[in-house]
Amino acid sequence: MEKAVFYHAGCGVCTDAEERFVEALDPNRFAVESVHLGETPERVGEARAVGVESVPALVIDGAVYHINHGADLSALG
Amino acid sequence: MEKAVFYHAGCGVCTDAEERFVEALDPNRFAVESVHLGETPERVGEARAVGVESVPALVIDGAVYHINHGADLSALG
Repeated sequence: MEKAVFYHAGCGVCTDAEERFVEALDPNRFAVESVHLGETPERVGEARAVGVESVPALVIDGAVYHINHGADLSALG
Repeated sequence: MEKAVFYHAGCGVCTDAEERFVEALDPNRFAVESVHLGETPERVGEARAVGVESVPALVIDGAVYHINHGADLSALG
């Protein structure tokens, strides 16, 4: 099982992408965790460390994919 | 079966995202078409019409997701 983490902040752009991508990935291959950085600001540092610059972003096996643009990470803490 | 179209232009950013997303989507739900706009410039107009502004971009059920940034569509024709 590959691990994928979807970082978002609850904004409209984020929510749309979250609903689409979290459920669109092959459930037989990916365990997807959805992290709301607005509600868990203590994880902003973790997101930054793996290379997330804005949300929404999907991290798969350490590779960061910024999907559209909702907010810069710097606005979240 | 839902239709998803992945537009790209063969650049490094595109190829990485293509390899990741085209195969990561649930194969039981999505029929994914990969369109290389550099090789099929006649489809640039189609991409623009659905809202693609840069590549790589994934279009699912008419919703456009720009994934990272390889090139602006305007650079492709």
